[in-house]
Amino acid sequence: MAGDLRRRALVLEYRGTNYGGFQFQENADTIQNQLEQAAQALFKQPIRIKGASRTDSGVHARGQVAAFDLPASFPEEKLVPALNHYLPRDIRVSKSYPVPDNFNPQKWAKGKIYRYFIFNRPQASALFQDYTWHVPKPLDTKLMNQGAKLIRGTHDFACFQAAGSPITDTVRTLWHLNCQRKGDQVIITCAGDGFLYNMVRIITGTLVEVGMGKRKPEQIKDVIHQKDRKLAGETAPASGLFLERVLYRPSLDTYRHL
Amino acid sequence: MAGDLRRRALVLEYRGTNYGGFQFQENADTIQNQLEQAAQALFKQPIRIKGASRTDSGVHARGQVAAFDLPASFPEEKLVPALNHYLPRDIRVSKSYPVPDNFNPQKWAKGKIYRYFIFNRPQASALFQDYTWHVPKPLDTKLMNQGAKLIRGTHDFACFQAAGSPITDTVRTLWHLNCQRKGDQVIITCAGDGFLYNMVRIITGTLVEVGMGKRKPEQIKDVIHQKDRKLAGETAPASGLFLERVLYRPSLDTYRHL
Repeated sequence: MAGDLRRRALVLEYRGTNYGGFQFQENADTIQNQLEQAAQALFKQPIRIKGASRTDSGVHARGQVAAFDLPASFPEEKLVPALNHYLPRDIRVSKSYPVPDNFNPQKWAKGKIYRYFIFNRPQASALFQDYTWHVPKPLDTKLMNQGAKLIRGTHDFACFQAAGSPITDTVRTLWHLNCQRKGDQVIITCAGDGFLYNMVRIITGTLVEVGMGKRKPEQIKDVIHQKDRKLAGETAPASGLFLERVLYRPSLDTYRHL
Repeated sequence: MAGDLRRRALVLEYRGTNYGGFQFQENADTIQNQLEQAAQALFKQPIRIKGASRTDSGVHARGQVAAFDLPASFPEEKLVPALNHYLPRDIRVSKSYPVPDNFNPQKWAKGKIYRYFIFNRPQASALFQDYTWHVPKPLDTKLMNQGAKLIRGTHDFACFQAAGSPITDTVRTLWHLNCQRKGDQVIITCAGDGFLYNMVRIITGTLVEVGMGKRKPEQIKDVIHQKDRKLAGETAPASGLFLERVLYRPSLDTYRHL
């Protein structure tokens, strides 16, 4: 139970394949549109739902966070199943947390964890095409990790931001960046305090070129130093990217007993 | 290179969701129909392709095996990509092997490995609905493994065969049967010398009842002893089942250098 708190944070899981990204759009089907439609159907009034991260079209989430104000008294334990009842099968609310009334899922976020899945064998996957990037040539994860080591830490990441972005403060800290092979898959895990537009996908595209031997790991130092998007690798496709978790301090669970 | 051998074994991966199972059907879209159409488009002549296992509608495969005779001289290294070119995205040939001319993928099979994926948390998965069975109530894998232990080994498995099956010799050996939790998933791995119709799905349905505490693990002894399908659990849905591998002795790789 949550005393007087009426704002709720929702943890969301979705398959981004059939949506135009998270953010509300007038003329496209987005995750936010679906959430607001489901909430309106449930509560019989217009509801605005804010997300922590504007994931792009085709990008998936296992731990996106969104927030809204619960109208009137609604039985707490029914919120998650009731929203899921009105949502399409490829969007699920996995948890809900009572949060302070000024909680803003984007501004309060202290960091995010992303994972990028590469399917690395000659033939594409019949099962996981929409959840991976198919790279047929063998990737050397040892080389990729040598490159990743140079990207970790606090840098001006202007080189890893999509061209034309209006963001000018491009210094971010990546606490963690690691490439790991599991059978036919290469998984890139990335955690940091903030991410520029397309940053994980451009880092992935660059590390894949390193893993193929197309560029030397040491060269990454220079790419970062020059702050030039054109020196980095291609933007990896949206299909392989998962927003795994949005981090808050204190954690969302903290307010449960208020 | 494969000397005079013209028969080829193909290792297949597919998403069973949109197909009426593996076996050819006149009026349904099946994996075999798709394979034969692709081969006919490639070789400009009718081709018959035999499978090792008749997977049901909705059942997936990572290692189904099928065989056919390669017409005329076709460049070995182009076979896999050329077939994949004509196949839909959710069916992929992952490998091809030259095999003896009397190789029969079904009769020569010494055993099979299946995996069944259960999604075990209150809310369904947005990402893997078609690849799992959603069981919302918590499963106790310790109890499930106590039940599995009683199913392993050589038994008359009549109780785990779909009602109405014409098969009368129902003795089989399961070398391996194990339940393992990985986060929200419970994975049942099953290996044996042969499987009756719906056997893995009925075993799964029975073990899930054990894992929910609906029936005691020891009761399974009685179910097997009585040879009565009605005493076993429900047939688990097709969506969670994967044919992981078909086993041959010697292995398919053996003939590569003949």
